[in-house]
Amino acid sequence: PELLCIFGTGDLGRSLGLRLLQSGYRVVYGSRRPHSCGPLPQGAQVMSHAAAAQSASLIFICVHREHYDFLETMASHLERKVLVDLSNNLKKGIYPEANAAYLQRLVPGAAVVKGFNTLSAWALQNGLLAGKQVHLCGNSAAAKQAVAEMATKLGLTVLDKGSLSAARELEDFPLQLFPEWRLPLRVALGLMAFFFFYLLIRDVIYAYVEQEQDISYRIMVSLANKVFPIVSLVMLSLCYLPGVIAAFLQLYRGTKYSRFPDWLDRWMLCRKQMGLVALGLALLHAIYTFIIPIRYAVRHKLISRVVDEMKNNKTTPFYFDDTEAWGTDSFYVLGILGFFLYVLLGLTSLPSVGGTLSWREFSFIQSKLGHLTLFICTAHGYIYGWNKFLRSSTYKWYTPPGYMLCLIVPSVVLVLKVILLLPCVDRTLTRIRQGWE
Amino acid sequence: PELLCIFGTGDLGRSLGLRLLQSGYRVVYGSRRPHSCGPLPQGAQVMSHAAAAQSASLIFICVHREHYDFLETMASHLERKVLVDLSNNLKKGIYPEANAAYLQRLVPGAAVVKGFNTLSAWALQNGLLAGKQVHLCGNSAAAKQAVAEMATKLGLTVLDKGSLSAARELEDFPLQLFPEWRLPLRVALGLMAFFFFYLLIRDVIYAYVEQEQDISYRIMVSLANKVFPIVSLVMLSLCYLPGVIAAFLQLYRGTKYSRFPDWLDRWMLCRKQMGLVALGLALLHAIYTFIIPIRYAVRHKLISRVVDEMKNNKTTPFYFDDTEAWGTDSFYVLGILGFFLYVLLGLTSLPSVGGTLSWREFSFIQSKLGHLTLFICTAHGYIYGWNKFLRSSTYKWYTPPGYMLCLIVPSVVLVLKVILLLPCVDRTLTRIRQGWE
Amino acid sequence: PELLCIFGTGDLGRSLGLRLLQSGYRVVYGSRRPHSCGPLPQGAQVMSHAAAAQSASLIFICVHREHYDFLETMASHLERKVLVDLSNNLKKGIYPEANAAYLQRLVPGAAVVKGFNTLSAWALQNGLLAGKQVHLCGNSAAAKQAVAEMATKLGLTVLDKGSLSAARELEDFPLQLFPEWRLPLRVALGLMAFFFFYLLIRDVIYAYVEQEQDISYRIMVSLANKVFPIVSLVMLSLCYLPGVIAAFLQLYRGTKYSRFPDWLDRWMLCRKQMGLVALGLALLHAIYTFIIPIRYAVRHKLISRVVDEMKNNKTTPFYFDDTEAWGTDSFYVLGILGFFLYVLLGLTSLPSVGGTLSWREFSFIQSKLGHLTLFICTAHGYIYGWNKFLRSSTYKWYTPPGYMLCLIVPSVVLVLKVILLLPCVDRTLTRIRQGWE
Ligand SMILES: Cc1cc2nc3c(=O)[nH]c(=O)nc-3n(C[C@H](O)[C@H](O)[C@H](O)COP(=O)(O)OP(=O)(O)OC[C@H]3O[C@@H](n4cnc5c(N)ncnc54)[C@H](O)[C@@H]3O)c2cc1C
Ligand SMILES: Cc1cc2nc3c(=O)[nH]c(=O)nc-3n(C[C@H](O)[C@H](O)[C@H](O)COP(=O)(O)OP(=O)(O)OC[C@H]3O[C@@H](n4cnc5c(N)ncnc54)[C@H](O)[C@@H]3O)c2cc1C
Ligand SMILES: Cc1cc2nc3c(=O)[nH]c(=O)nc-3n(C[C@H](O)[C@H](O)[C@H](O)COP(=O)(O)OP(=O)(O)OC[C@H]3O[C@@H](n4cnc5c(N)ncnc54)[C@H](O)[C@@H]3O)c2cc1C
Ligand SMILES: NC(=O)c1ccc[n+]([C@@H]2O[C@H](COP(=O)([O-])OP(=O)(O)OC[C@H]3O[C@@H](n4cnc5c(N)ncnc54)[C@H](OP(=O)(O)O)[C@@H]3O)[C@@H](O)[C@H]2O)c1
Ligand SMILES: NC(=O)c1ccc[n+]([C@@H]2O[C@H](COP(=O)([O-])OP(=O)(O)OC[C@H]3O[C@@H](n4cnc5c(N)ncnc54)[C@H](OP(=O)(O)O)[C@@H]3O)[C@@H](O)[C@H]2O)c1
Ligand SMILES: NC(=O)c1ccc[n+]([C@@H]2O[C@H](COP(=O)([O-])OP(=O)(O)OC[C@H]3O[C@@H](n4cnc5c(N)ncnc54)[C@H](OP(=O)(O)O)[C@@H]3O)[C@@H](O)[C@H]2O)c1
Ligand SMILES: CCCCCCCCCCCCCCCC(=O)OC[C@H](COP(=O)(O)O)OC(=O)CCCCCCCCCCCCCCC
Ligand SMILES: CCCCCCCCCCCCCCCC(=O)OC[C@H](COP(=O)(O)O)OC(=O)CCCCCCCCCCCCCCC
Ligand SMILES: CCCCCCCCCCCCCCCC(=O)OC[C@H](COP(=O)(O)O)OC(=O)CCCCCCCCCCCCCCC
Ligand code: HEM
Ligand code: HEM
Ligand code: HEM
Repeated sequence: PELLCIFGTGDLGRSLGLRLLQSGYRVVYGSRRPHSCGPLPQGAQVMSHAAAAQSASLIFICVHREHYDFLETMASHLERKVLVDLSNNLKKGIYPEANAAYLQRLVPGAAVVKGFNTLSAWALQNGLLAGKQVHLCGNSAAAKQAVAEMATKLGLTVLDKGSLSAARELEDFPLQLFPEWRLPLRVALGLMAFFFFYLLIRDVIYAYVEQEQDISYRIMVSLANKVFPIVSLVMLSLCYLPGVIAAFLQLYRGTKYSRFPDWLDRWMLCRKQMGLVALGLALLHAIYTFIIPIRYAVRHKLISRVVDEMKNNKTTPFYFDDTEAWGTDSFYVLGILGFFLYVLLGLTSLPSVGGTLSWREFSFIQSKLGHLTLFICTAHGYIYGWNKFLRSSTYKWYTPPGYMLCLIVPSVVLVLKVILLLPCVDRTLTRIRQGWE
Repeated sequence: PELLCIFGTGDLGRSLGLRLLQSGYRVVYGSRRPHSCGPLPQGAQVMSHAAAAQSASLIFICVHREHYDFLETMASHLERKVLVDLSNNLKKGIYPEANAAYLQRLVPGAAVVKGFNTLSAWALQNGLLAGKQVHLCGNSAAAKQAVAEMATKLGLTVLDKGSLSAARELEDFPLQLFPEWRLPLRVALGLMAFFFFYLLIRDVIYAYVEQEQDISYRIMVSLANKVFPIVSLVMLSLCYLPGVIAAFLQLYRGTKYSRFPDWLDRWMLCRKQMGLVALGLALLHAIYTFIIPIRYAVRHKLISRVVDEMKNNKTTPFYFDDTEAWGTDSFYVLGILGFFLYVLLGLTSLPSVGGTLSWREFSFIQSKLGHLTLFICTAHGYIYGWNKFLRSSTYKWYTPPGYMLCLIVPSVVLVLKVILLLPCVDRTLTRIRQGWE
Repeated sequence: PELLCIFGTGDLGRSLGLRLLQSGYRVVYGSRRPHSCGPLPQGAQVMSHAAAAQSASLIFICVHREHYDFLETMASHLERKVLVDLSNNLKKGIYPEANAAYLQRLVPGAAVVKGFNTLSAWALQNGLLAGKQVHLCGNSAAAKQAVAEMATKLGLTVLDKGSLSAARELEDFPLQLFPEWRLPLRVALGLMAFFFFYLLIRDVIYAYVEQEQDISYRIMVSLANKVFPIVSLVMLSLCYLPGVIAAFLQLYRGTKYSRFPDWLDRWMLCRKQMGLVALGLALLHAIYTFIIPIRYAVRHKLISRVVDEMKNNKTTPFYFDDTEAWGTDSFYVLGILGFFLYVLLGLTSLPSVGGTLSWREFSFIQSKLGHLTLFICTAHGYIYGWNKFLRSSTYKWYTPPGYMLCLIVPSVVLVLKVILLLPCVDRTLTRIRQGWE
C-alpha cells in the first residue's frame, strides 16, 4: 500500500494517521522530536521531518500556521511534493494572506493543496466521516487529483473549489457560527423585544398609571408567557408566507422558469430555522403554561377568591358556566394538538428522520401538516379571545391586545392558502409547476 | 474524466449536474434554449439537445414525461445511447404505460434504464446521498452496468430490479405515502373510535339519562384523556404480543426454520410504527394531564367544594387519607416512569441513535426495557382502579369502565412473557433459536 | 461479477446474501438441505456444501459455532479457500478458544478471517450499512485484503486488527452492553442513593422522631423530586469539572503535549453520557414538578388551609407578598430556561444533528451554552433557598438541606471557570493550546 507522510504529531496528525491506517495506507510521521512524541496510532512510523518527507510524495502539514517557518528551511526536501495544508485560524482576517498561500510562498517548489480543514480531529478519531463533503483547492490539477483519490478512499465526498485563491474562503468556513440561524434569530429577537415592550406598556404600566397597582411581578411569567406564544405564532406563519408568495408570483408570471427575487430566495432558505425557533418558543410557552398552577400569585388568587367569597357571602361566580367550560377546554385542546403537530414537524426535520422519508412524505408532513398546524394554532389564538374582541375594556389606551396583533399574519397566510387551494387556481398552478408556460 | 449529458435544466437537472461535477465528471446540458436557461452549476456546458447528445454516451432525461415527444423527433441522435429515465408522475395510474416503457417506445434504438427517481432534487442539492439506495431496471445489462458504476461513484448503493417491466413499480415507489404507518394508524383510529363511543355512552350519556346532568363539556378533555392512554396502552401491548406469539409458535413447532404465518410477519414488521403511535398518544396523555389543574371545571369544582363545605359545615372529607396519598402518588410515579422509558424507546428508534448501538444494546432497550415499560404502564392502570374493581357503582349499565377493558391485552402479554421466562421454557427456546431441531 | 459462497441459509446468511447481490456479486449458498431451505434472496443459487465450496474462493460461514464440526469432514474441499468467520457467542468465555481459532484448527488448510460479526442480520436486511466500521483479523494478509475489498464495496469501512489472536476481542465486542454508560450510571446511582437516604433522614425520619408525624407518603413524589434535580445538577457540574481541571493542569505544566492522568482521560471520555443521564434526571424533575398541583396531598393542603383560615378567622397569610411573587417566579423561570438549554444540549448530541455542525458550532453549544446552562441551573438552586440559608430551622439535626450540598460542586466549577476567563489567564491558555511551550 501507498505511503503517506504527516508532519506534526498533534491532535489532528494523530487522528488523521489513524484513519489513513484504517483505510489501508502506510503512514510515516515527521516530528521535531521523533523519540518523545506521545502515543501514535499503531503501525505508524515516526522520523525527523526531512527523513519522513523523503519517503513519501504526499505530505499532510498538521502544524499550526504560526510554526510554518521551519518548512522554509527544508524547502529543498519538499521539491515536487504535494503538500496538503489543513490549517485553520483562530479568527477571521488575522493574517493578510491565506495560510495555504503563505505555505506556497515558503515552499515554491511544492504543489500546495488546501483542504480537509473542515474535519475535526474529534470526528476523525470517532469515525464520523461517511459521506462528509470536503472542499479542495490548489493550483496543480494533478496534485488535487491525488488528494481527491485519497479522500474518496477515506469515504469522503470531494468538491473542487478551483485554484489556490479560494483558500481564504475555505479557511473562513470552519469559523462560521450558525450563518443560517442568524436571520431567524434576529427576527425572533426583534419581534420579542417589540411585543415585550408593547405588552409591558399595555399591562404593567397601564395598571400602574390608571389603577395605581404594582403588578410588575407579572413580567417574569405572565408577560413572558404572552410574548413567547405570540412570537412563535408569527414565526410559524412567516414559515408559510414565502411559499404562498412564491405561488402567487408564479401564477402572475405564468412560468416557473424565472428566478424569484433575491429576498424571497433567502427567506425560503431559512424557513427550516424559522420553524425550529418557533418550535423552541412554543415549547417554552407549553412549559410556562404547565407551571401556572404552582405559582404563588395563582394560588394566592385562588385562595383569596374563596375567602372573599365566603366573607362577603357573594355567590355569583359559583354557578357553572357551561360555555366557559367548553370554550376554555377547546382552547386548551387546540393548543395541545397544535403543539403535538409542531413536535412532529420538528422530529421530521432531524436529518436522520428526514433522510428516511421520500420527498412526497417529507412534503406531506412539512407542507400539509404544517399548514394544519398553523391553522390549529391560529384557531387556538382566536378562541382565546373569542369573547374579548367586542369588549371595549380590551382596548386599553385604544391599543389592541397582543394576541390580536399576532393573529394578523397567520390569518392572511391562511386566507391566501385557501385561495391557492381553489380547484381552478390549483390546476393552473400545478400546470405551471409541471413546466407549462 | 468522463462526459455525461443531461437533458433539461430544471430543478432535478441542475442538482444532478452539480453532484456529477462534484464527483469528478464533466457535464453537458441539452436544453431548448441553451442561451437563457437560468443559473447552472459552475463548470457545466449547455448546448442544444442534439449537440449535447452527440458528445456523450449516457444521457439523463430530466424532463417531465409530458414533454417527452420532442425525443421522438431526435431519435436518430440517440441511437445506441444509454438513456436514464428519472421521471415520476403526479399520481398513480394516470398513464397506461410506465414512463420508461414509453420512452423506450419513442426511442427504440437506445437502451433505456429506469432509476434514480427516488432521489429528490433537494436532497441532491444538499448532498444527502451517502449510502442511499437506488433501484435500477432496464433491458440492457451493459447499460445498467454503466449506470450502476456511475451511481456507486456518487456514493449510492445500487439495487438491480431486473428488466424494464419493473419500471412501473419503480415509478410508483416515490408516490407512496407512509405505507408502513397505515396499519398502525388504522388500528389506532379504530380503537380510538371504539373507546370514544364506549366512554361517551358510559360517562356522558349515562349521566344524561340516569342523572339528567349535562356533562358534555367533559368530552374535550376528560374523555379524550381516557381514550388516549387507553389506546396507547393497548397499542403498546400489541407491540409485544407478536414476539410472544412467535415464541410460542417456535416452541410448539420445535424449530425456527419454518416461516411464520403471513399475518404474523406483517404484524412484526409494523411494531416500530405501532410503538411510535403509542408514544404519540402517551405524549398527548401526559400533556392533557399536565393541564388538568388550570381547567375551568377543575378550578370550579375545587372552589365550590370548599364553599359548600363551609356553608354546610361538613368536615368529613378533610381528614388526611394516608392510603389515598400513597395510592395516588404511586399511581403518578408509575405513569411518569413509564412515560420516561417510553421516551427512551422512542429515542433509540431514531435512525441515527439506533445505528450507533450494537444489536445486543438495541434489543436490550427495545425488548427488555420495552417489556418493563409495558409492565410499569400496566401497573399504572391497575393502581388507578385499585379501589374501584369491586365497587358495583363502577359498572354503570353493567359495563366495565374503559381502563378495565384496556388492561386485558397487556395482562395477557405479561403473563405469557413470564411463562417464557421460566428457566425450562427459556432454555428450550434458546436452543431452538440457536438452530437445534 | 465475482462469485461468493455462503454456508448456512439462516437469518444472517440470507441478509448477507441479499446485500452481496445488491452490490453486484453473484452468490451461491451451501446448505444441509438445498431443496427445502426457505426463501432465499432472488438470484442466489443453493447447493450442497461441497458443491458450493468448489465454485468460489471466498466462503462466509454463517453457521453457529456449535455446528462447526461438519466443516472438519469437508476440510479437503476447503483447501486454500478464504473462510470468513462471522460467529458470535451467547456469553463471554463459554469456550476456551475463540470461534475463529477453532475454525482454523478444524480446517488448517484454509485462511480464516474473523470479521463482520458486529453487523446484525436486521441491519443488513434494512440497508443500514453506510459508513459502518467493521473490524477484521486473520493470519493471511492476502485473505484479509480480499475480504477488505469486498467490505469496501458493500460500503463498509474496514479496520485491520492484526492476526487471528485478536479474534477473541472481536467476538467479545458485540456482547458489550453500554460500556461507556456504566461509569456515569454508577455515579448517578451512587449519588441518588446517598441523597435519598440523607433526605429520608432529614425530612421523613426527623419529622417522625421530633414531631411524631408520619409523612412517609412524601417519599414517592416530594422526596424523589428533590433527589432527581440534586443529582442532575451535580452530574451536570461533573461534566464541566474535568475541562476546568484539564485547563489548570495545562496552565500549571505550561504545555499541552504531556498526557493527562488516566483518570482524567477516562472522565473526559464519559462526559457525554454523564450529561445525558443528567438530562434524563432533569426531565424527570420537570415532569414531577408539572404534576405537583394534581396531587392529593397538595390539593388537600390547599383546601384545608382555606377552611382553617375561615374557621379561625386568621387573615395573616392573605396579604400579597410581592417579594415572594418575584422570588418564586424568577425561580421557576430560571428552572425553565435551564431545562430548555439542557434539551438543546441533548439535541445537538444526537449523532445526526451533531454531525451537521462544524466543530466551532458544536463546541459553542456544548461548551459555551453548556456553561450557561450550568450557571442558570445553579442560580435556580440558589434562588430556591435564598431566604433559607440563614434560618436556623433549615439545619435540622445540624445538617444542611440537600440543595445546599448540591450547590457546592457547581459553584466551584463556575468560580474556576470565571478564573479561566480572566483575560490574562485566557491568553496564556490559548497560547499553550496553540502549541507554544
Ligand atoms: C418545527 C418546524 C420544522 C421545520 N423543518 C423544516 C425542514 O426541516 N426543512 C424545511 O425545508 N422546512 C422546514 N420547516 C418550514 C416549513 O415547514 C417548510 O418549509 C414547508 O415545506 C413549507 O411549505 P410550503 O408549502 O409553504 O412550501 P413549499 O413546499 O416549499 O412550497 C412553496 C411553493 O413554492 C414553490 N417552490 C419552492 N421552491 C421552489 C423552487 N426552487 N423552484 C420553483 N418553485 C419552488 C413550490 O412549488 C411550492 O408550491 C419547518 C417548520 C417548522 C414549524
Ligand atoms: C416507542 C417505541 C419505539 C419502538 N421502536 C422500535 C424500533 O425502532 N424498531 C423495532 O423493531 N421495534 C420498535 N418498537 C417495537 C418493540 O419495542 C420492538 O419490536 C421489540 O424489539 C419487541 O421485542 P420482543 O422481545 O417482543 O420482540 P423480538 O425481539 O423481535 O423477539 C420476538 C421473538 O421472536 C423471534 N423472532 C423475531 N424475528 C424472528 C425471525 N425473523 N426469525 C425467527 N425468530 C424471530 C425472536 O427470536 C424473539 O424471541 C418500538 C416500540 C415503542 C413503544
Ligand atoms: C445534555 C448534555 C449533552 C451532552 N452531549 C455531549 C456530546 O454529545 N459530546 C460531548 O463531547 N459532550 C457532551 N456533553 C458534555 C459537555 O457538554 C461537553 O463535554 C462540553 O464540551 C464540555 O465543555 P468544556 O469546555 O468543559 O470541555 P472541552 O470543550 O473539552 O474543553 C476542555 C478543555 O480541555 C482541553 N482539552 C480537551 N481535550 C483535549 C485533548 N485531547 N488534548 C488537549 N486538550 C484538551 C480543551 O482545550 C479545553 O480547553 C453533554 C452534556 C449535556 C449536559
Ligand atoms: N484539531 C483539529 O480538530 C483541527 C481541525 C482542522 C484543522 N486543524 C489544523 O491542524 C493543524 C494542527 O492542529 P492540531 O490540533 O493537531 O494542533 P496541535 O495538537 O497543537 O499539534 C500541532 C503539532 O505541530 C507540531 N509543532 C508544534 N510546534 C511546532 C514548531 N514550532 N515547529 C514545528 N512543528 C511544531 C507538533 O508536532 P511535533 O511535536 O511532532 O513536531 C504538534 O504536535 C492546525 O493548523 C489546525 O488549525 C486542526
Ligand atoms: N424535482 C425532483 O425532485 C424530482 C425527483 C425525481 C424525479 N424527478 C423527475 O425529473 C423530471 C424533471 O423534474 P424537474 O423537477 O427537474 O422539472 P422542471 O424543473 O420542471 O424541469 C423540467 C425541464 O424540462 C425541460 N422542458 C420543459 N418543457 C419542455 C418541453 N416541452 N420540451 C423539452 N424540454 C422541456 C426544461 O429544460 P430546458 O428549458 O433546458 O429545456 C425544464 O427545465 C420529471 O420527470 C420529474 O418527475 C424530479
Ligand atoms: N443473526 C445475526 O444478527 C448475527 C449477527 C452476527 C453474527 N451472527 C452469527 O452468524 C451465525 C449464524 O447466525 P444466524 O442468526 O444466521 O443463525 P441461524 O438463523 O440459526 O442459521 C444458522 C444456519 O446454519 C445452518 N445450520 C444449522 N445447524 C447446522 C448443522 N448442524 N450443521 C450445518 N449447518 C447447520 C442452517 O443452514 P442450512 O439449513 O442451510 O444448513 C441454518 O440456517 C452465528 O454464528 C451467529 O453468531 C449472527
Ligand atoms: C442556536 C440557538 C437556537 C435557539 C432556538 C431554539 C430552538 C429549539 C429547538 C431546535 C434546536 C435545534 C438544534 C440546533 C442545532 C442545529 O443547528 O442543527 C442543525 C441541523 C441542520 O440540519 P441541515 O444542515 O440538514 O439543515 O438542524 C437540525 O438537525 C434540526 C434539529 C431539529 C430538532 C428538533 C427536534 C424536536 C424534538 C422535540 C423536542 C420537544 C419535545 C417536547 C415534548 C413535550
Ligand atoms: C404520520 C403521523 C403519525 C402520528 C403518530 C404520532 C407519532 C408520534 C411520534 C413519532 C413521530 C415519528 C415521525 C414519523 C416520521 C417517520 O415516518 O419516520 C420514519 C422513520 C423510519 O425509520 P426506518 O425507515 O429506519 O424504519 O422513523 C423514525 O425515524 C422514527 C422517529 C422516532 C422519533 C421518536 C422520538 C421521540 C422523542 C421524544 C419526544 C417526546 C419527548 C417528550 C418529553 C416530555
Ligand atoms: C441506558 C439507560 C440510560 C438512562 C439515563 C437517562 C437518559 C435520558 C435521555 C438520553 C437517552 C439516550 C439514549 C441512549 C441510547 C444510546 O446509547 O445512544 C448512544 C449514542 C451514542 O452516540 P456516539 O456513539 O456518537 O457517542 O448516543 C446518542 O445518540 C445520544 C442521544 C441523545 C438524545 C437526547 C435527545 C434529547 C431530546 C429531548 C427530549 C426531551 C424533550 C423534553 C421536552 C419537554
Ligand atoms: C401545550 C399546548 C398549549 C397549551 C396548553 C396552551 C395554553 C395556553 C394558555 C393557557 C394561554 C393563555 C395564557 C395567558 O393567560 O396569558 C395561551 C395563550 C396563547 N397561546 Fe397557547 N397553548 C398551547 C400551545 C400553543 C401553541 C403551539 C401556540 C402557537 C404558537 C400557542 C399560541 C398561543 C397564543 C398566540 C396565545 C395568546 C397569548 C396572549 O396574548 O395571551 N399556544 N395558550
Ligand atoms: C407523564 C406520565 C403520566 C401521568 C402523570 C399520568 C397520569 C394519569 C392520570 C392523572 C390519570 C387519570 C386520568 C383521569 O382522571 O381520567 C391517568 C389515567 C391513565 N393512564 Fe396515565 N399518566 C402518565 C403516563 C401514562 C402512560 C405512559 C400510560 C401508558 C400508556 C398511561 C396509561 C393510563 C391509563 C390506561 C389510564 C386510565 C384511563 C382511564 O380510563 O381513565 N399513563 N394517568
Ligand atoms: C422545567 C423546568 C423546571 C422547573 C419548573 C423547576 C421547578 C422546581 C421546583 C418547583 C422546585 C422545588 C421542589 C420542591 O419543592 O422540593 C425545584 C427544585 C430544584 N430544582 Fe428545579 N425546576 C426546573 C428545572 C431544573 C433544572 C434543569 C435543574 C438542574 C438540574 C433544577 C434543579 C433544581 C434543584 C437542585 C432543586 C432543589 C431541590 C431540593 O432540594 O428541593 N431544576 N425546581
